[in-house]
Amino acid sequence: MMQTPLLLTQMMDRAEKYFPKKKVISRTESGVQSFTYKEIVERTRRLASALHQLGVQKGDKIGTLAWNHHRHLEAYFAVPCSGAVLHTINFRLSPEHIIYIINHAEDRFLLVDADLVPLLEKIKDKLRNVKGYIIMTDQEKVETSLSPVYFYEDLLTDGDPTYSFIEDLDENTPAGLCYTSATTGNPKGVIYSHRGIFLHSMALGLADTVGMSEKDIAMAVVPMFHVNAWGMPFASMWFGTTQVLPGPYFTPKLLAELIQEYKVTLTAGVPTIWLGLLKEIEENPYDLSSLRGVLCGGSAAPRSMIEAFEQKYNIPFLHAYGMTETSPMALISVSNSSQESLSMEERMDIKAKQGMLVPGLDMKIVGKDGEVKWDGKEMGELALRGPWIASEYYNDDRTGDAFRDGWLYTGDVVTIDEQGYIKIVDRTKDLIKSGGEWISSVDLENSLMAHEAVFEAAVVAIPHEQWQERPIACVVLKDGYQDSVCKETLMEFLRPQFAKWWLPDDILFMKEIPKTSVGKFLKRALRDQVKNHLNKV
Amino acid sequence: MMQTPLLLTQMMDRAEKYFPKKKVISRTESGVQSFTYKEIVERTRRLASALHQLGVQKGDKIGTLAWNHHRHLEAYFAVPCSGAVLHTINFRLSPEHIIYIINHAEDRFLLVDADLVPLLEKIKDKLRNVKGYIIMTDQEKVETSLSPVYFYEDLLTDGDPTYSFIEDLDENTPAGLCYTSATTGNPKGVIYSHRGIFLHSMALGLADTVGMSEKDIAMAVVPMFHVNAWGMPFASMWFGTTQVLPGPYFTPKLLAELIQEYKVTLTAGVPTIWLGLLKEIEENPYDLSSLRGVLCGGSAAPRSMIEAFEQKYNIPFLHAYGMTETSPMALISVSNSSQESLSMEERMDIKAKQGMLVPGLDMKIVGKDGEVKWDGKEMGELALRGPWIASEYYNDDRTGDAFRDGWLYTGDVVTIDEQGYIKIVDRTKDLIKSGGEWISSVDLENSLMAHEAVFEAAVVAIPHEQWQERPIACVVLKDGYQDSVCKETLMEFLRPQFAKWWLPDDILFMKEIPKTSVGKFLKRALRDQVKNHLNKV
Repeated sequence: MMQTPLLLTQMMDRAEKYFPKKKVISRTESGVQSFTYKEIVERTRRLASALHQLGVQKGDKIGTLAWNHHRHLEAYFAVPCSGAVLHTINFRLSPEHIIYIINHAEDRFLLVDADLVPLLEKIKDKLRNVKGYIIMTDQEKVETSLSPVYFYEDLLTDGDPTYSFIEDLDENTPAGLCYTSATTGNPKGVIYSHRGIFLHSMALGLADTVGMSEKDIAMAVVPMFHVNAWGMPFASMWFGTTQVLPGPYFTPKLLAELIQEYKVTLTAGVPTIWLGLLKEIEENPYDLSSLRGVLCGGSAAPRSMIEAFEQKYNIPFLHAYGMTETSPMALISVSNSSQESLSMEERMDIKAKQGMLVPGLDMKIVGKDGEVKWDGKEMGELALRGPWIASEYYNDDRTGDAFRDGWLYTGDVVTIDEQGYIKIVDRTKDLIKSGGEWISSVDLENSLMAHEAVFEAAVVAIPHEQWQERPIACVVLKDGYQDSVCKETLMEFLRPQFAKWWLPDDILFMKEIPKTSVGKFLKRALRDQVKNHLNKV
Repeated sequence: MMQTPLLLTQMMDRAEKYFPKKKVISRTESGVQSFTYKEIVERTRRLASALHQLGVQKGDKIGTLAWNHHRHLEAYFAVPCSGAVLHTINFRLSPEHIIYIINHAEDRFLLVDADLVPLLEKIKDKLRNVKGYIIMTDQEKVETSLSPVYFYEDLLTDGDPTYSFIEDLDENTPAGLCYTSATTGNPKGVIYSHRGIFLHSMALGLADTVGMSEKDIAMAVVPMFHVNAWGMPFASMWFGTTQVLPGPYFTPKLLAELIQEYKVTLTAGVPTIWLGLLKEIEENPYDLSSLRGVLCGGSAAPRSMIEAFEQKYNIPFLHAYGMTETSPMALISVSNSSQESLSMEERMDIKAKQGMLVPGLDMKIVGKDGEVKWDGKEMGELALRGPWIASEYYNDDRTGDAFRDGWLYTGDVVTIDEQGYIKIVDRTKDLIKSGGEWISSVDLENSLMAHEAVFEAAVVAIPHEQWQERPIACVVLKDGYQDSVCKETLMEFLRPQFAKWWLPDDILFMKEIPKTSVGKFLKRALRDQVKNHLNKV
C-alpha cells in the first residue's frame, strides 16, 4: 500500500474541492456572518502565508484565546497545515494558570479575540516567549497595550490566497496542544498528532458512533479551546458538513434560536449547557425538530435530562465519554440491534450509560482483583489504549500518574454490563469510601436530579471518624420550589432507591454549585465549602 | 499520541468481546449453518494454532481456493493475525494462471474447498512451493491424490481455542494478497497491509459511504477471492455486523431466498449478479424489504437496472467503483445535501455515476491537456492516491504500467461533474477512437440495456480504414423478444440519444457475451469474435 500520511491538509483539500459552496455560519462580536468553504479555505491559506511571513516555523506553538467562530476555525487548519502546533487556551482558567501554560508551551504568537485582550494585557509582562499578538476582531482597530500587535484581517488582506500547505509532513507530527483544566496543581498538556486527529475524525463519521455526514448541520457548543471542540471542526471540514459556530457569550435562548434558524441537526456540549437549553425550551416555544442528535459529554448526563430530551421533545440524545487525553471520543451510547425489543424504560437505562468503546480503541477495567466482571455492578478504573489516546503529558513529570504499561488510566471508576455498555460511577478521587465499601457520588446526584424540584445536585465526601467518609448532598432547587421542598422531601425520595448506608448524611441547599471553567462540578471547592458549612453549624 | 498499530487483531478482538452472540450464517456444501462470533473467533484461534503447528512462519503466503463461507472467513483472520499473508485465489482463472499465481506468490499451504480439489489435482505437479493441502469440507473424508493432505475440521479439533495472535506487528505488515484477473498476460499481484485494510474498513463504516453498522445483516455475494469481498468480511467482524455467506454455486433464486429469510440489509456484488436477481424477482414474488442497500461495483451498472431496483422495488442502490489495486472502495454514489431539491430523474442521473471520492483518498483526472474541467463532459484518466491504494504490483516488472509519480493510473476514462460526481466512460483500452474523437462504449451499452428487450449489451471497437476505429454493438435479447426486435428496432432507439457518428456500424445478436471470471465483459475475446463474425459475413 502507498505510504501516504494521514494529514489535516487532506481534510481541507476535500472541503475546498468537493464542498466549496457549503457554509460556515459564524457568530462574532458584531453578529452572524456566513462564509462558504471556498472562502474559509482561501482565508486559511492567507493566514498560513501571513504566519509564514511573521517567521513561524515548523514545530512552533501558536496559542489561541478565542470563542467558537470562523477565525478560530481558520487557525485550526492554517497552523497545523503549516507544520506548526495549535495551542488552544482555555481563557476561563485563572490568570496564573494561563501564564503557566503559555510559558510551558512556549507559545510564539497568540491569536486573541478583542474581548479577551484585557485578560492578556494583565499578564503580558509574565509571558516569556510570545513574539506577537494577533487580534481577531471585526473592528478596524482595538486600543491595546499589547505589543507588537497585528490585526487578523489586515494580515489576511496581505496574505497569499493561493499559499500551499506543507504536504510532506510525517503523520506523527504534532498538530494541536491542549491543557487539562486541572482542579489541583498546574494544568497538564496533551499533544494531538495529525494521525490522531485524522483517525479520531474518521471515528466521528462512523455510522455506529456520531455518524457525522455531509448532510449534517453541526453546531459545536463545546468550546473550541476544549479538546478541539471534540473534533467537530475537523470532521466537519473533512466531510463537508455545514457548521454553525455560536460565538461569544451565548445564552440558552441564543442556542435555541440558532438551532431553529439554521436547522441544526447535530450539536455538542456538556450537561450544564443542555440543562440550560432544556429550561429555555420548557419556558418558550421553539421548533427544534431538525435535531437528530444532541451529543453530550464532559461529565455524566442526568437520566432525567436525557428522558426529557428524548421523550418530551423527541430529540435524540447521544451520551458520550472522553477526556482531554482521549481526543476525546472514547465511549458512546448508541443503540444496537440487541436493544430492538427493549421497552422505553430499558432503553433509557442504557442511554444513561456512557456507552460502548468506539471502534479503533482498546480498553480494560481494573478493579480490586484484576479485570472486573461484565455484570453492571463490579466497579473498576477504566484504562484506554489506541491511536487517538495520548501517550504522555507534554514535558511533564506527572506523566506517570496516568500513563502506565502502555495504557492511559483515566481516573474514572466504571461498571460494564453484559452488552459492553460502560457506566461512569465516579472519579476515583470523588468516590466515597464508607466503611470499606464504595458509594458512587454520581448515582446519588443523578437520582436527586431526577426529582422535579431539583435543578442541580452534587454529592461529596466528608471525613468521618467511624466510617472514614460519608456523603453530603448539595442541591440547587428550581425557582418556585423553595417553600415546598425540604431536606426530608428529598430523603424520602431517595430512600426507596438506595441501601440505607448510601443515603447522604445531610442535604444542603445552595444558590449554585461551583463549576470548573468547562462547566463540570468543581468538587474540590465544594468539599471545602461543605466542610466550612458544617463547621459553622 | 500512542503508537498503537492499526491491525486486524483489533477487529477480531472487538467481535469477540462485544458481539459474542452475533451471528455468521454460512451456506456450505451440506446446507446452511449458523455460528456465533464467539464460536468463529474460537475456531479462528484453533486454525491459527494449527497453522503454527504446521510450521507457518511470519510472512508465509497461505492460499485459499474457496467460496464464501465461515471457514474462509476464519482464514481471513487466522492467517494475517499470525503474521502470515492470506492469498485468495480466483479459482475461475485458467489452470495456467492458477499455477502461475500460486508459484509466483510462493504459497506454502493451500486451503481448498472439497469441490475444488479436482482442480488442484490436475495442476499439483506444477506447484513449486506448496508444502501441504488443507481441505475445507463438512465431510469426514475426501478421496484425493493431493499430498500431504489435512482436513480443516481435524486441524481445528486438535487446535488451541485460546491461542494468542501476534500483537506486536508493524501496521505495514502484509496481510493479504490478491491477483488481478488480467485479460492479457499473467495476473498481477497486489499486497494489502494491515494498515490499508484497517483504514479501508473504517471508510466502509462512514455514514457518507456504505455506513456499515452493527445493525446491518450483510451478505457479500462478491467472491471472497475477489479483492477481499470488497472488505465486507473485515468490516463486518469489526463492527459486529451479522454476516450471511452464500456459499457455493448459488443462483439468483437462492440469493433472493437468503435475503428474504435472513432479512439481509446490505448486499454487494457485480452488475451481472443484480441483473440475475432482478430477473428472478420479476418472475417470482419475494419480500426483500429488509434491504437498505445493494452495493454494486466491478463494472458500471446500467441505469435501467438501477431504476428498476430503486423505483420498481424500492431497494436503494449504492453504485461504487474500485479495483484490485484500490482495496477496492474508491468512489461511491451516495446522495448529498445538494440533491435534496432534485427530481427523481435527476437523482437517477447521479445514481448512474460511480460517485464521489471516498474520504481518505486523493484523486486527479488527467486529460489530453492536463487535469480536466469539472463539467461532466471532458474525459480523462482517473488517477488515485491514498493509504489503501497499492503502490506496486507484487514482484512484478509491470509496476510502471500503472504506478507513476506516487499515483495509481487506473486505466479508466472518466468525466467529473460540478458536484464532483465521477462517471466511468470507458477503459482507456476499450474507448473507441473514431476520426480523432472519443466514443464511450459504456454509454452505448447502457443505452442499449435500457431497452426493454435487451438483457445484455457490449460495444467494442473494430479497426476502420477511414475512421481508425468504429463501434460494433453485441446484444443478448431477453427470452421472447427474438421475433419482435431486430437491428433497426435498436438503431431507432439509439438515434435520438447520440450524435450520428457515435451510432454503432452494426448490431450483432448473440446467445451470450463472453465474461471474465468475475463477471465483467471480456472485451478482448468479444473483439476477436466480432472480427471473425464480420469476416464471415
